[in-house]
Amino acid sequence: MKDIKKLTVGLIGGTGEEGRGLALRWARAGARVTIGSRLLERAKSAADELNALAPGTYIRFAENKTAISGADLVLLTVPFQHAAATLKNHLKDFEPGSVLVDITVPVSFEKGRASYVELPEGSASEHLKSLLPDSIDIVAAFKTIPAHLLVDPNASLDCDVFVAGDSAEVKAAVIEAIGALEGVRAVDAGRLSSARTLERMTVLAIGINRRYKVKTARYRVVGL
Amino acid sequence: MKDIKKLTVGLIGGTGEEGRGLALRWARAGARVTIGSRLLERAKSAADELNALAPGTYIRFAENKTAISGADLVLLTVPFQHAAATLKNHLKDFEPGSVLVDITVPVSFEKGRASYVELPEGSASEHLKSLLPDSIDIVAAFKTIPAHLLVDPNASLDCDVFVAGDSAEVKAAVIEAIGALEGVRAVDAGRLSSARTLERMTVLAIGINRRYKVKTARYRVVGL
Repeated sequence: MKDIKKLTVGLIGGTGEEGRGLALRWARAGARVTIGSRLLERAKSAADELNALAPGTYIRFAENKTAISGADLVLLTVPFQHAAATLKNHLKDFEPGSVLVDITVPVSFEKGRASYVELPEGSASEHLKSLLPDSIDIVAAFKTIPAHLLVDPNASLDCDVFVAGDSAEVKAAVIEAIGALEGVRAVDAGRLSSARTLERMTVLAIGINRRYKVKTARYRVVGL
Repeated sequence: MKDIKKLTVGLIGGTGEEGRGLALRWARAGARVTIGSRLLERAKSAADELNALAPGTYIRFAENKTAISGADLVLLTVPFQHAAATLKNHLKDFEPGSVLVDITVPVSFEKGRASYVELPEGSASEHLKSLLPDSIDIVAAFKTIPAHLLVDPNASLDCDVFVAGDSAEVKAAVIEAIGALEGVRAVDAGRLSSARTLERMTVLAIGINRRYKVKTARYRVVGL
């Protein structure tokens, strides 16, 4: 992995809680971050807000296609139900060798209860992988980190980020890059199919949040 | 839940690592523990070994049917591939109102790599539930705790035990009982179908163990 100061991170649909939270945390770590959105104005508004929150960082903004094209790591931070369509729209914007980091979780809610949405490919990450050309690698990460916590600039993450992917080399680079973020440890969770477990763990955490009346349940591996 | 000193715990096939480890830890907490086995001599040998390890505790031994019939909590501690057959053999031995605690994980190994074995019912716990009459409740617990750690009398568990079940009342009683064990926190993981997640988390932990060359990976929920 290159020097974190040379790492470029672009966020597709980066104006939601996950996107803004990850933009802030990568920017604080020293990476060059661009928040993308369908609407330039919305990207600008999110970036302005974050730059005001975190003096000394400069988060850029752009339309999605521009955020994608210059990025080493492209974070897909739209809700799962929009992920496939958004990705298809932007496949041509990826540069060869860039890496898609998928943070989506397929979850549905009924009467406040979260359920995992089963997909033919086994997981959201594998579903999205099926849409990608071989020139774009995909890694699953950040799936189990609560959006609520990510976006709170004063909250310490204090947990593990599980990273799954089929290319050992690409996964190792992403693990190293995540290691630059404050308060987290990146844990190699194996092949991309481990996303089946990680996505369900998110749904489990949402249920734990509901039962224990918190918003911050997440995981740490003990004994590692 | 009654006083822990009056809680009776019976282990079906309790001579393996999981069984011996759980017997030891329940006995230390003050429960009345009986290790069951198909062969009385094997149950005796396991109990003798544990009683020598932990002076002041007295772990009983019996054939499986006897271990089951007197128990408030019946722990099924045989490997998953024997779980259904063992359970079917002993359905008549359960007293009404006793609770089956399922710790099994359906996992297969190929070249040292663990894979989750998908079952038609969704999880091992749901599979086993389908074999039970309505008079026997089932709760999933201890699925993510490494056997290696359980059986080491000097190891602190230092992690969460996820507990899943469809009866809120039964689950609450099991959570309270597990709360008496040293070094663990029992976490309400929701309905029995959460075993789909918990069993996969075990397979994930086995993979983490392999990649990081440890034997002790387990989980703690942060933010709870």
